[in-house]
Amino acid sequence: MTGIAVLGTGRIGRMHAENIAAHPRARLAGVYDIHGPSAQEVARKLGVTQFDSVEAVLGSDDVDAVLIASSTATHADLIEQAVAAGKAILCEKPIDLSLDRVNACAAKIAGSQLPIMLGFVRRLDSGHAGVRRAIESGRIGDLHQVIITSRDPGMAPDAYIEVSGGIFRDMTIHDFDMARFILGEEVTEVSATGSRLVDPALMERCDDYDTVTVVLKTASGKQAIINNSRRAVYGYDQRVEAFGSAGMAISDNHALDHVRLYGEGFTDRAAALKDFFIERYDEAFAAEIDAFVDAVEQGKPVPISFEDGRQALILAEAAIRSAAEGRTVKTAEIG
Amino acid sequence: MTGIAVLGTGRIGRMHAENIAAHPRARLAGVYDIHGPSAQEVARKLGVTQFDSVEAVLGSDDVDAVLIASSTATHADLIEQAVAAGKAILCEKPIDLSLDRVNACAAKIAGSQLPIMLGFVRRLDSGHAGVRRAIESGRIGDLHQVIITSRDPGMAPDAYIEVSGGIFRDMTIHDFDMARFILGEEVTEVSATGSRLVDPALMERCDDYDTVTVVLKTASGKQAIINNSRRAVYGYDQRVEAFGSAGMAISDNHALDHVRLYGEGFTDRAAALKDFFIERYDEAFAAEIDAFVDAVEQGKPVPISFEDGRQALILAEAAIRSAAEGRTVKTAEIG
Amino acid sequence: MTGIAVLGTGRIGRMHAENIAAHPRARLAGVYDIHGPSAQEVARKLGVTQFDSVEAVLGSDDVDAVLIASSTATHADLIEQAVAAGKAILCEKPIDLSLDRVNACAAKIAGSQLPIMLGFVRRLDSGHAGVRRAIESGRIGDLHQVIITSRDPGMAPDAYIEVSGGIFRDMTIHDFDMARFILGEEVTEVSATGSRLVDPALMERCDDYDTVTVVLKTASGKQAIINNSRRAVYGYDQRVEAFGSAGMAISDNHALDHVRLYGEGFTDRAAALKDFFIERYDEAFAAEIDAFVDAVEQGKPVPISFEDGRQALILAEAAIRSAAEGRTVKTAEIG
Amino acid sequence: MTGIAVLGTGRIGRMHAENIAAHPRARLAGVYDIHGPSAQEVARKLGVTQFDSVEAVLGSDDVDAVLIASSTATHADLIEQAVAAGKAILCEKPIDLSLDRVNACAAKIAGSQLPIMLGFVRRLDSGHAGVRRAIESGRIGDLHQVIITSRDPGMAPDAYIEVSGGIFRDMTIHDFDMARFILGEEVTEVSATGSRLVDPALMERCDDYDTVTVVLKTASGKQAIINNSRRAVYGYDQRVEAFGSAGMAISDNHALDHVRLYGEGFTDRAAALKDFFIERYDEAFAAEIDAFVDAVEQGKPVPISFEDGRQALILAEAAIRSAAEGRTVKTAEIG
Repeated sequence: MTGIAVLGTGRIGRMHAENIAAHPRARLAGVYDIHGPSAQEVARKLGVTQFDSVEAVLGSDDVDAVLIASSTATHADLIEQAVAAGKAILCEKPIDLSLDRVNACAAKIAGSQLPIMLGFVRRLDSGHAGVRRAIESGRIGDLHQVIITSRDPGMAPDAYIEVSGGIFRDMTIHDFDMARFILGEEVTEVSATGSRLVDPALMERCDDYDTVTVVLKTASGKQAIINNSRRAVYGYDQRVEAFGSAGMAISDNHALDHVRLYGEGFTDRAAALKDFFIERYDEAFAAEIDAFVDAVEQGKPVPISFEDGRQALILAEAAIRSAAEGRTVKTAEIG
Repeated sequence: MTGIAVLGTGRIGRMHAENIAAHPRARLAGVYDIHGPSAQEVARKLGVTQFDSVEAVLGSDDVDAVLIASSTATHADLIEQAVAAGKAILCEKPIDLSLDRVNACAAKIAGSQLPIMLGFVRRLDSGHAGVRRAIESGRIGDLHQVIITSRDPGMAPDAYIEVSGGIFRDMTIHDFDMARFILGEEVTEVSATGSRLVDPALMERCDDYDTVTVVLKTASGKQAIINNSRRAVYGYDQRVEAFGSAGMAISDNHALDHVRLYGEGFTDRAAALKDFFIERYDEAFAAEIDAFVDAVEQGKPVPISFEDGRQALILAEAAIRSAAEGRTVKTAEIG
Repeated sequence: MTGIAVLGTGRIGRMHAENIAAHPRARLAGVYDIHGPSAQEVARKLGVTQFDSVEAVLGSDDVDAVLIASSTATHADLIEQAVAAGKAILCEKPIDLSLDRVNACAAKIAGSQLPIMLGFVRRLDSGHAGVRRAIESGRIGDLHQVIITSRDPGMAPDAYIEVSGGIFRDMTIHDFDMARFILGEEVTEVSATGSRLVDPALMERCDDYDTVTVVLKTASGKQAIINNSRRAVYGYDQRVEAFGSAGMAISDNHALDHVRLYGEGFTDRAAALKDFFIERYDEAFAAEIDAFVDAVEQGKPVPISFEDGRQALILAEAAIRSAAEGRTVKTAEIG
Repeated sequence: MTGIAVLGTGRIGRMHAENIAAHPRARLAGVYDIHGPSAQEVARKLGVTQFDSVEAVLGSDDVDAVLIASSTATHADLIEQAVAAGKAILCEKPIDLSLDRVNACAAKIAGSQLPIMLGFVRRLDSGHAGVRRAIESGRIGDLHQVIITSRDPGMAPDAYIEVSGGIFRDMTIHDFDMARFILGEEVTEVSATGSRLVDPALMERCDDYDTVTVVLKTASGKQAIINNSRRAVYGYDQRVEAFGSAGMAISDNHALDHVRLYGEGFTDRAAALKDFFIERYDEAFAAEIDAFVDAVEQGKPVPISFEDGRQALILAEAAIRSAAEGRTVKTAEIG
C-alpha cells in the first residue's frame, strides 16, 4: 500500500483524498492545507492525520508520495521540496504560471529517479485515450487533423479568473496537453486568437479572453485546432476528434443520463452534459491514482511527466504571444 | 417508355401520377377518377389525358399498365378487369377488406403472366430493405426477433376510420407485410391485443382499436413484434429492428432535418419526424415505379406480389380473431 | 452507520459487500456463506467478520440489517428468520421460484414494520427512473405503450439454466418488475410466447426458452411489450421505451466508452455495450444501498417492496401458463 | 414559366439542366457547351434545344435567364455578356480566380437591376439554413464560435487540381461563404495554415495544400474555424456548428441510409456519408432553382449575390496570404 499525503484540500484536493482513501492499493497518509480548518474537515471525515506543516508531511515515514493540489504558486516549491525529501509526486496542473520558474524547477530536480507525474487527467479518460489507441492501432491511418472542443459550463468566479494567469495558461493548458497526446508529435507552430464575448468587462479588466481558438502544427504538417469558451450553457463540453487518412475517431460528450425525450416538434432530446470536471472525469481521476500507484510501487513510467507539464506551458506562452502579435509563433522562439 | 394510367386521383393517386410523369422510363398515359373534377385537375396540371371511364382506360392502346389508387372497395374488380384487358397492374394496398373476395380474385386471375404488383411501398425503403439485406448477407447471423414500430403522426378523419376495415386491415397490414419481408419465413401463429387510448369514443363507436400490439411466430420459432398507434405527436414513427445470433440491424427514423440543438438543460435535440408517408417514403415511392417499370419492360419479377397482399390480409384476419378471442390464432385456421 | 451483514458471497454478494463497505452511511457488519472459503476470502479482503452460521449473523447486535444474496431456494427462509430476529432485509430477486412459498412467506411476515426491500435494482437506474419521472411529470402525457428490450450478453452456464426456474422466473422477472414500475398500474392480462433459438438442445432438455416475447395489459388498456434473448453478441442490451399521448421517453443503452469510429464504408460506430449487470447497473447497485440505508435509518419507505417481488412472480406464472396454453392469461387466474 | 438556358453541360451543368426541366415553374430553354457533343447529349435526353453559340443563347427570346456552369475562366465574361443581353443570371462559384477580374466585372455590371445569383448552394441546405435560422430566432443567444468541417470524399483528378486556383479559392471558397452566412457579420481577420498530407507530391508540384485550417474573426470578436481535407475515406463530411451564449446548433452529416448495425464488439454503426455534392446537396440544388425562379418571376432578392461571391474570394485571398506569410491578415489589406 502506497502512503500518499494530499497537500491542499480545496475542492480538487478533497476529491483526490477521497479517491486515494477508496483505492485498493493506496493509503491516504494524511492531509495538509495552509488553511487549517479545511484540512481538519477532510482529515476528520476520512479518519486520517492532519499534518500541521509541509515539513511534517515530508518528514513522515508514513508518507511515500505527495499529491500536490495546493494553489498554483506553491507547486514548483513543493515539487522541489518533495524531491529533496525523496517523495514521489503527483502534481496538479500547471507546474507554474512562469516558464522561467518551471525551467528552474526542472534544472533543480534533474536526475531525480522519483516518479513525478503531472495531473493532466484527461489523458486517462477512456474516450480520449480510446482515440489515441485508435491512432496507435492504425485504425484511422496517418493522422492529419485534430479538433479539440473544450468549453467550461460556466464562468469561474472573478477572483479565480484574476489570478488564473489567463485562459491559455489556465484552461487551454489542458487542451495543449491533449493536443500533444493525440498528435504524438511535437508542435512547432502556434497561431492563436482570443475574444471577449462571455464577460467582456471582466476580460477587459484582466486583459484576458473568454473565447479562444488555437491552431497548432507539427513539423510533418499535422494540424490541431483547439476551441475554448468559458461558458457553455448546456454543460461541460469535452470532445476530441482525430481525422486521418483511413478514418476518424471521436471522443464524444457525456450527458447526465441516457434518457431521450420526444415531444411535439422534436425528437431524441438528451440531457445536459455532465457538469463539471469532477463528475465528467471521475473515472479518469481514479485511473490517475491507479497509474501513480503503479509508478510508485512497480516503477512503471508515469503516463504524464514533468516535461509534459513544461511543454504545455511552452504552447501557452506561444499562444499568448501569437494572439498578441497576430502572427504564427514558432515554439522554438519560446523558452 | 411504359405507358401507365392512374386510376384514382386522391392524395396518393396524385403523388403516383407525378412520380410516373417524372420517371425517365415511364409515361403517364392518363388519369381517371370517378369524381371527374379531381382527375381533371391532375390531368391539366400534368398535361395528360383525362379518361372518362375505366373502360376507356383499359381499352386504350396507349395504356400498358394501370396503377390502382382508387378506393379499396374497387381494387379487386379493377384488378380483374385489368387482367382481362391485358394490362400490367400496380395496386395500392389492401386488395380488399374481405379475404373471401381476395381469394375469389386470386382464382379469377390465376395463370395470368401479367406483372401484378402490390403497393407495400415500405419494402422499397432503403432503410428497411437495408435491414433485409443485412440478414441475407449473414451480417446478423440467424434471425431471432423482429420489432416493428409503426405509429401514425395523427388520427385519420373519423370518416376514414369508419370505413377503414379496422386498424389491423388498414394500418397494421403494412407491418404484417414488413414482418413477412424481414422474417423471410411464413408466420404460423398470431397473437394480438388492442386498446382504445387515443380516441376512445370513436374507437368504441367503430368497434376498433387505436393502439395495438401483435406478436407473430414462424414455424422455426422466429418472433416478430408489431406495435402501432394512431397518433405519435412527434411525427411518423417508422422503425424496424432485426435481432439475430450474430448482431442486430435497425432501420431508424427520419427527422425533418439534420439539425441538433443544445440549450440550457438539454443537448442533441433533433427535429420532429417526417410527417407523413408521402414525405417519409418519397424515395421508396419512386423506387416502386422503378421496380414496376422493370417488371413491365424487362419481365423482372415484381418485388411485391398479389400473394403478398393476400398473406398480409390473412395475418390481419388472424390478428382480429386473436384480439377478439384472447388466444393465439394459427394462420392455418384462416382462409 | 447501519450495520449490514451479507448472506451469500457469490459474485453478486461480493459486489454488495464492497458497495456496503464503501458506503458513507453503511458499515459492513460481516459476511456469511454456506461455502466457508468463499466468505473467508471476502471477509479477509474487506477486513470484516466472517460469521459461521446464519444464527450467528442474526444473533449479532452488530447487525442491523441483512442483505440476502444466497441461492434462491434459501431466500424465503432467510427472510422469515431475519424478520423473526428483527433485522431489516434487502433481498435479491426472486423471493422464491414458487408462488405458494412466497405467499406463505408473506403470510408469516405480515404485520412486520421492518424495512423489507427487494433487489430489483433496475428501478434505481438513472435512465429507467428518468423515464418513470418523465411520465410522472406529464412530459409524455398519458402513457399508452411500454417496450422493454432486455437481452443478456451470453448464455449462462448450463448448470445455472437448469436450476433457474425457467427464463420467465429467472430473467424476465426483472422486466415484469420494470413493466409494473413504468406502467404505474397493475397488469391484468398476460400473453407470452417462447422460442428455442440460441441453444435449442439445452432448452429442449430444460423445457425452457431462450427467446421470449411477453405482452402485458392493464385494466385501462396500457400495453407493455417485453422481449428477451439469452444472448446478444454486442453486449448487455437494456432499453426501456415509454410512449404516450404527448411524447416518448427512452432509456437507452450504455456503450463501453464514448468513442465513435469512422472508416471506409462506415461512420459513427460505437463500442460494444457494457457487459454485464454489475458493470451496467453499477450506479444503481450503489443507489440501492443508499435507498436501503435511508429506509433503515430514516424510516423512509423502501422503493421496492416484498409485494413487488410477489407481483413480478405472479406475472411470471401467468406468462408460463400463457406460453404453454397459447392464450391470454388473466392475472386474476393466478394465485 | 421562366425559360432558363444552361451554359456548360459538364457534370454540374447536366444536373442543373435536369433540375430545371423537372421544376414546376421553370422551363429548360436549351443548353450550350463549347464541347458540342456534351451539349447534344443533354439536349437529346431532355428534349430541348442545343444552342450553337453563347450569342444564340443570349439572343433568344425564349431565354429569360442563364445558368452559368461552364469553366471558371468563362464566368466573368458570360456574366457581363448576359447582363448586357438583359438576362437574369445564376452563376456557379467562383466568379473568377482573380479578384481583380471580379472587381472589374462588378464595375461593369454595376447598376444592373437584373437578378444575379451566385451558386453557393450550401446556404440552401435545410440543415445549414436551419442553423442560421436557430441563430436568427435567438435559440442560441449571441453567436460566439462557428466550426465548419468540410472534407471531400476523395482527391479530384490531378488535372482538376492543377487548374483549380488552389484549395482556398476552389474548395474553401464554399466554407468562406458558409462562414459569412452563419456569422451574419463581415470577417475582418483571417489566419490560415495548410499542409500536404493526402498527396504530398501533387501538392508540391502545384504549390498547393490538401489539408487546411482557417480561422476567421469579425469586428465584434466572433470566431469561425474552417477545416478542410481533400479526402475523407468515410464520405463527404459536411458539418456546421454554431455556438452561442444560450446554446448550440449543429447541422450534422447525411449518411447514405438510416440503417444501424450491431455486432460482436460494436454497436450503432452507420453507413458511409453521401458521396458527393450532387447527392448530399440534392435538395439544396432544387431549392436553388426555386429561389432563382422566385427572383426572376417575383422580383424577390436573390439569397446569394454577386457581392457574396466577391467577398468569399477576398477571404480566399486573405487566407492565401496568411498561409504564405504566417500571420493574421486583415481583410482590409485585400482588394
